Amino acid sequence: MLRGRDIISVNDLSRHDFEEIFRMADEILEAPDRWSSILRSKIMATAFFEPSTRTRLSFQTAMLRLGGEVIDLGEVEKSSIAKGENLSDTIRMLDSYADVIVIRHRLEGAAKLAAEIAEKPVINAGDGSRNHPTQAMIDLYTIRRLHGRIDGLTIGVLGDLKYGRATNSFIAALTRFRIGKLYLISPPQLRVRDDTRELLVEAGIEFREVERLEEVVEDLDVLYASRIQKERFPDPSEYEMVRGSYVITGESLRGAKKNLVILHPLPRVDEISFEVDSTPYAKYFEQAALGVPVRMALLKLILVG
Amino acid sequence: MLRGRDIISVNDLSRHDFEEIFRMADEILEAPDRWSSILRSKIMATAFFEPSTRTRLSFQTAMLRLGGEVIDLGEVEKSSIAKGENLSDTIRMLDSYADVIVIRHRLEGAAKLAAEIAEKPVINAGDGSRNHPTQAMIDLYTIRRLHGRIDGLTIGVLGDLKYGRATNSFIAALTRFRIGKLYLISPPQLRVRDDTRELLVEAGIEFREVERLEEVVEDLDVLYASRIQKERFPDPSEYEMVRGSYVITGESLRGAKKNLVILHPLPRVDEISFEVDSTPYAKYFEQAALGVPVRMALLKLILVG
Amino acid sequence: MLRGRDIISVNDLSRHDFEEIFRMADEILEAPDRWSSILRSKIMATAFFEPSTRTRLSFQTAMLRLGGEVIDLGEVEKSSIAKGENLSDTIRMLDSYADVIVIRHRLEGAAKLAAEIAEKPVINAGDGSRNHPTQAMIDLYTIRRLHGRIDGLTIGVLGDLKYGRATNSFIAALTRFRIGKLYLISPPQLRVRDDTRELLVEAGIEFREVERLEEVVEDLDVLYASRIQKERFPDPSEYEMVRGSYVITGESLRGAKKNLVILHPLPRVDEISFEVDSTPYAKYFEQAALGVPVRMALLKLILVG
Repeated sequence: MLRGRDIISVNDLSRHDFEEIFRMADEILEAPDRWSSILRSKIMATAFFEPSTRTRLSFQTAMLRLGGEVIDLGEVEKSSIAKGENLSDTIRMLDSYADVIVIRHRLEGAAKLAAEIAEKPVINAGDGSRNHPTQAMIDLYTIRRLHGRIDGLTIGVLGDLKYGRATNSFIAALTRFRIGKLYLISPPQLRVRDDTRELLVEAGIEFREVERLEEVVEDLDVLYASRIQKERFPDPSEYEMVRGSYVITGESLRGAKKNLVILHPLPRVDEISFEVDSTPYAKYFEQAALGVPVRMALLKLILVG
Repeated sequence: MLRGRDIISVNDLSRHDFEEIFRMADEILEAPDRWSSILRSKIMATAFFEPSTRTRLSFQTAMLRLGGEVIDLGEVEKSSIAKGENLSDTIRMLDSYADVIVIRHRLEGAAKLAAEIAEKPVINAGDGSRNHPTQAMIDLYTIRRLHGRIDGLTIGVLGDLKYGRATNSFIAALTRFRIGKLYLISPPQLRVRDDTRELLVEAGIEFREVERLEEVVEDLDVLYASRIQKERFPDPSEYEMVRGSYVITGESLRGAKKNLVILHPLPRVDEISFEVDSTPYAKYFEQAALGVPVRMALLKLILVG
Repeated sequence: MLRGRDIISVNDLSRHDFEEIFRMADEILEAPDRWSSILRSKIMATAFFEPSTRTRLSFQTAMLRLGGEVIDLGEVEKSSIAKGENLSDTIRMLDSYADVIVIRHRLEGAAKLAAEIAEKPVINAGDGSRNHPTQAMIDLYTIRRLHGRIDGLTIGVLGDLKYGRATNSFIAALTRFRIGKLYLISPPQLRVRDDTRELLVEAGIEFREVERLEEVVEDLDVLYASRIQKERFPDPSEYEMVRGSYVITGESLRGAKKNLVILHPLPRVDEISFEVDSTPYAKYFEQAALGVPVRMALLKLILVG
């Protein structure tokens, strides 16, 4: 039962929750018109304290496609926050205007705080370096649609596994399923944190940490790529050294299985070269498009059950 | 009759106008769903030349909850105004797109000018240092809901009474009612202007100007707080001197009546300390929430009578 | 047949296309309420990489007045483009969210590129220095409404004929009709480019290039004015020299025909003096207002035929 719930972290979601959302998304994709006024008279507030055009527009599109309406806090620099207002007062305002609040924030814990203050359901659209639960829903749903299942697959996650909000949420979500094998592919500086490793052990997931995609590419059913941000390296020269090894090219995919699925939370800068776009592996645009039905499913289940 | 009228200043509004809006807001609160498509096919334009997230979102929510639609001028720095366009041409544009225009502007008289140019009704969402008529509607409506009446109450207004747009509108609106007594609580530098004083005398309102909340707090049924802006003081040290005396704390409310209602137009910075939030006096969040039904009432009455 | 088509340049539009849009706009103006839910459940994305409040709001109003919904990319500086995303990925995102994409861009060819990437129809809301096809539709529609026809009229185009996006589109659109005579009125530095001249010759349009409005004003049925931008002149003193001759005043209109129609794409800065606003010639505000029904017609024809 998702009705009325806050969605703050993947940790709050059971396998059953994921599957309820997936089934609803299936229904929506089958007959989108059937749902086009189910949220009539409902208002969603988007509060993006950290800008993210893709995620904001994906949520807004989802709400509008269900017949609901949207209000947007706008740029934080222009809002009352610039006059010194605290987050609590801002959330209280949105709580009295809207039926559901979607929040994005640079700081870990911001969404949780918002959920504690607001009476209306709060959806975390990404905060800190760990939580982006709706992205994880979309990632898993895409895999399920393309491979027909999640259980039993061999999955590689590449890039920034330490600070990456999307990669961390994705890995946490995998622990809800019985995947075959997990490869964690990253430079030594950006390996998963200890608590993630513990989470995997606890869940009984077989995983291996490697430094190069080439070592494992032939084994993969899914490759989840992500951006390596320069800012993560205290020494820029270190960044320049590792970065080339984490750019996915036609060459680096040699030997890949025919039905390998490459995902990426987007936007990408140069971590997937354009030549890959025209390979059958490239599924990141399809993944982005599936963001709408998945978020429609979530909004529908939260607001009207 | 409010249909088709511009709402520029409290001075244009009779007691009867206020009461019509209050009755409509009551009806909306009783059965919100009944009104959810009364403004279908109507468009409201919001033109905030001075940013105000709360007021903008409150108006937008009100319009959407009535089934109407919203277009927003956006940030002025990015609009044609930045290319040198004059206010008149901008208003003419909005007049040809929308059915009602909501304007906010730093300069006194901007809303009046807009109303002269536009054929469609114009609502002043705050201009200059004097006019914010919809805020006054909300303030009085909140008092009426919480105390059951406005007439006969003892009311204190605290803070910047000279330049404060909300306090000035509130005081002007009080002259439409037969309140018991009015205390004007401010530092000497920020006392009400002479014309406000004359307005009060003319209306036969008994008022007293004092410098400290403590002198009158025991007498109050309503305390209207507002921000004291640093910019108002030519000498920053003067600001630092007075500011502490106008922060409302648990201590400063000692001896208050049990049913004292504290209002504030929000956002607040530090003029009401957080400890006050959990007292039964704190009604400013409720007041903010009532902004939506009051603005719904106004939009409904202006657009369809 | 406009259904499903991209609208990138006037060059893609036949006289028949223009007339189909004009007839639809007529129908909409006659009975606007009849069309107020024809685009229910459709979403339009506006992607203004170059800000233009008028054009954005005109499109948004048009979509809302047809019962559709709008998502807006917002300011580019805040979007993923600032994280280094390329235009193609941004367009792909919008393509998966919306049913039609409206794009504005500083660079020539951006709209064409977007149309090649997107499966959904793309409408060019202005790119580079040549293409602004919906502005041309509005300009011609205004003339047709006010003069009852386009064919046979004597038309003057004044200002920046070299880089002006609106003037270039307007002139190109005129070649679809059998106008009487065309005067191209500009300083020598801002004359039409050779390819435009060839276009006119090919279309068999009689035209003359002149430097002063006064030479031809008595002959005109329509005067299309536009801004001369300082940036076009390498030498600022050169700009100061020519600029005064291209400001339309009461004086410069002496001897004009009684039913002369002055148009301007707006916003204007000082190229039409305010005294002209109160003459019967001033039709630029009416022209701006007609932007809504013309864009409604276009959106309706593209999305549902």
